[in-house]
Amino acid sequence: MGRVVELTDVILRDAHQSLLATRMAMEDMIPACEDLDNAGYWSLECWGGATFDSCIRFLNEDPWERLRQFRKLLPKTKLQMLLRGQNLLGYRHYEDEVVERFVDKAALNGMDVFRVFDALNDLRNLKTAIAAVKKTGKHAQGTICYTVSPVHTIGAFVDMAQHLKDMGADSICLKDMAALLKPQPAYDIVKGIKEKCGEDTLVHIHAHATTGVTLVSLMKAIEAGCNIVDVSISALSLGSGHNPTEAMIEMLEGTGYETRVNKDLVLKANNYFTKIRPRYREFMSDFTGVDTEIFKSQIPGGMISNMESQLKGQGAGDRLQEVLLEVPRVRKDSGYPPLVTPSSQIVGTQAVFNVLMGKYKAMSGEFADLMLGYYGSTLGEKDPEVLAKAEAQAKKKPITCRPADTLKPEWDVLKADAAKLENFNGSDEDVLTFAMFPQVAPKFFKARPEGPKNLGKDPGAAPAAAPAPAKAEAGAKGAQPKSPVTYVVSLNGQEHKVTVAAAE
Amino acid sequence: MGRVVELTDVILRDAHQSLLATRMAMEDMIPACEDLDNAGYWSLECWGGATFDSCIRFLNEDPWERLRQFRKLLPKTKLQMLLRGQNLLGYRHYEDEVVERFVDKAALNGMDVFRVFDALNDLRNLKTAIAAVKKTGKHAQGTICYTVSPVHTIGAFVDMAQHLKDMGADSICLKDMAALLKPQPAYDIVKGIKEKCGEDTLVHIHAHATTGVTLVSLMKAIEAGCNIVDVSISALSLGSGHNPTEAMIEMLEGTGYETRVNKDLVLKANNYFTKIRPRYREFMSDFTGVDTEIFKSQIPGGMISNMESQLKGQGAGDRLQEVLLEVPRVRKDSGYPPLVTPSSQIVGTQAVFNVLMGKYKAMSGEFADLMLGYYGSTLGEKDPEVLAKAEAQAKKKPITCRPADTLKPEWDVLKADAAKLENFNGSDEDVLTFAMFPQVAPKFFKARPEGPKNLGKDPGAAPAAAPAPAKAEAGAKGAQPKSPVTYVVSLNGQEHKVTVAAAE
Repeated sequence: MGRVVELTDVILRDAHQSLLATRMAMEDMIPACEDLDNAGYWSLECWGGATFDSCIRFLNEDPWERLRQFRKLLPKTKLQMLLRGQNLLGYRHYEDEVVERFVDKAALNGMDVFRVFDALNDLRNLKTAIAAVKKTGKHAQGTICYTVSPVHTIGAFVDMAQHLKDMGADSICLKDMAALLKPQPAYDIVKGIKEKCGEDTLVHIHAHATTGVTLVSLMKAIEAGCNIVDVSISALSLGSGHNPTEAMIEMLEGTGYETRVNKDLVLKANNYFTKIRPRYREFMSDFTGVDTEIFKSQIPGGMISNMESQLKGQGAGDRLQEVLLEVPRVRKDSGYPPLVTPSSQIVGTQAVFNVLMGKYKAMSGEFADLMLGYYGSTLGEKDPEVLAKAEAQAKKKPITCRPADTLKPEWDVLKADAAKLENFNGSDEDVLTFAMFPQVAPKFFKARPEGPKNLGKDPGAAPAAAPAPAKAEAGAKGAQPKSPVTYVVSLNGQEHKVTVAAAE
Repeated sequence: MGRVVELTDVILRDAHQSLLATRMAMEDMIPACEDLDNAGYWSLECWGGATFDSCIRFLNEDPWERLRQFRKLLPKTKLQMLLRGQNLLGYRHYEDEVVERFVDKAALNGMDVFRVFDALNDLRNLKTAIAAVKKTGKHAQGTICYTVSPVHTIGAFVDMAQHLKDMGADSICLKDMAALLKPQPAYDIVKGIKEKCGEDTLVHIHAHATTGVTLVSLMKAIEAGCNIVDVSISALSLGSGHNPTEAMIEMLEGTGYETRVNKDLVLKANNYFTKIRPRYREFMSDFTGVDTEIFKSQIPGGMISNMESQLKGQGAGDRLQEVLLEVPRVRKDSGYPPLVTPSSQIVGTQAVFNVLMGKYKAMSGEFADLMLGYYGSTLGEKDPEVLAKAEAQAKKKPITCRPADTLKPEWDVLKADAAKLENFNGSDEDVLTFAMFPQVAPKFFKARPEGPKNLGKDPGAAPAAAPAPAKAEAGAKGAQPKSPVTYVVSLNGQEHKVTVAAAE
């Protein structure tokens, strides 16, 4: 028996977020739940900002109800969510009471593992959420966003892990949203954490597959002692998604590491999702390969297309290369934030501004806020000149405190505002939905009685005759000798047995 | 400076064989050659059985001329080919003189590295080819087909490597055509070869990406001392193809290993092939993910669809699972041949026969030949009862000698027969083309003056709106737009040419 490496499957959350624009309906996940629950995962990730958003914006599903359903359908397995620290699942900082109430309700509705992160790695933005999770008795996972910069040394990541542990984190997650984590740093960081924080520190790695290298990084991380890794059942894996569960299980054979996940149940679930996936064809990302240019610009693929359309909108579609070179400079000026929502958008848009209008001639409000500390602190120093410009332009003082400390209590106001909405059901859960998505929630509450909408479309509309020639063709690929095939052909109402061989 | 790991790029051969049905025209490769030549590869694989076949069958390109063009366009880089030992690029055993003349002509036309393999790993089938390569002064790479069975132990592979070295092989290739090579055996085999055959033995690994684990296996092989690995530029990588060149270069950063391949030139070539790839959409494999069920059945995906259509043709489409369970038994009975063309087809078809008609009630001529040693010897023992049945059914004696030893000199006959063909140009190259493809060569010689046909289609020709849905569709298996195919159809004893296009 080798050392057990635990698996978290992201098939119910990040997989379809990355590959199917988060559109998978609960209805299409339910049939797989029994197999997933019995497979032996450490946890199943099933909830987060984008799923919550998609539920109320597109699927007319109550995300809290989705959570309760998962709890019932997955009784043996820990449920896991991704939580944006002080931002919860929304796009601003919330006052502490809101954070505490959210965590409390999520736990009561069935959540077990809270993966708490902050886009800037400002640990003060994780403090309240981690403490709230600890109070519920659930698992608080402190998260480090992985990025590459001169200040993001192995030592800096290891120190961050120690701080998270000191804050009470039950495990440490290294989150590699852009697939930048290469094998050697993966090894070194895990080794460093184990040495500094103790061998018994649980280390969990979340990596996307976009650059094609991260399965190797997971192998090296495992060799360094990593305890848990994120994977996704192969039907919804690779591209900008994650490394396939089945490949992870298989690759460990004979290595002295092994998972306790049942391969046959995973294959069964994979057969199921292989059938479901084509239902969401219109939402599919068409990127299925690898993209290593991310290593240069550090800009995730999705963001590049964003910037391209910003540039085209300004009649400057030919200046993308300049922008790609400007991004690292803007990132340096702003203290090397990791590039993840929302910092990726903020830095990218400022780079576009700089190229089109001259260096910091115009500044977005968000970039000024980032410079002035309103999102939190960054690991690197900020450029003093750019900081002065931000202050002048935004007419705001920089702050050095925790951003949420500038907020007034807001729960009662949120509750009162939510209570005014049509179909508000009176629960704290509804108040929280409204708090996080104030634009979308009112429409959702109103439409909620209509019940969930499944946006998947049955691809079975094609005629029955089509598959046969397709297969005959498949045999012809690679110029292999083709064997004759017999078809039953209806001709003028009569059935004939027809034997077909490829013509030379 | 770390240890240099050399790269062979298969973009000009196996990549488009695996992903675009070997249809890429020389014309579409030429513009990338300068960058490829300057990038610093150990070699560029650019020639083999399927490319040769595709050239004369579909592209009206003289494969010898393609080779000469590559030689001119890639003056700094070794050209590499895949050679099926005593079968050359054809489907039968050739008498030694033919093998020698082929190797000689290939070398004269510019080939540098001959990767010589035999589907059964019968080293006697490699002997003549390796000796012939040595005589030309070129690089003879002795190849081990990787497979998994009770008799294919690490020790057995290592012994095979030693035998290849004794035969004069300049390097040893471990060829993993089905992506079965997991990290630990990859490490153990390379380590074993280095220990037994000497640290200075060049070890080269060729692995497909189909199961999703082999980039990790390449990493472990490199750690064990592997010198050269096969990769493919990312635009034509993954799925049933190979691991991406860019990912290989990037993943080694900081590990103490490094390639000497220029990343920027690879990115440039990748941008080029990214534009070329959609021209071959109609030939594209729609498999872009990973398939780990291969580990169970060891049957490559393409073969499974072959067997499915054989079964359906017999009205037994529901018995695939039985066949998949039968394959390992047939493989055992026949001495555990690796499953690669042609043994994969022979074993698979026999498994279908066994399921439909009862265990060895009917036997294909090819399976009887395999049992009786006419393809060579296998590493495992053959089942004596099945062997007796083969002997009875084929009315042939088993042989234990090298299959080619049963052949009479045939060069003069081949030459005389070729000379009768219209447009035969009198060269030994044309004789060899005819020898290897006696059905196709006559038509090719005739049509040759018309010049190469490029089957790629400018995707810009379609109405502007078309490409988007096509791409979305490509993500779904079996849903690709199909081009019409012409079949010869026997109906009530009469032959008809029927062109079939998928109904909308």
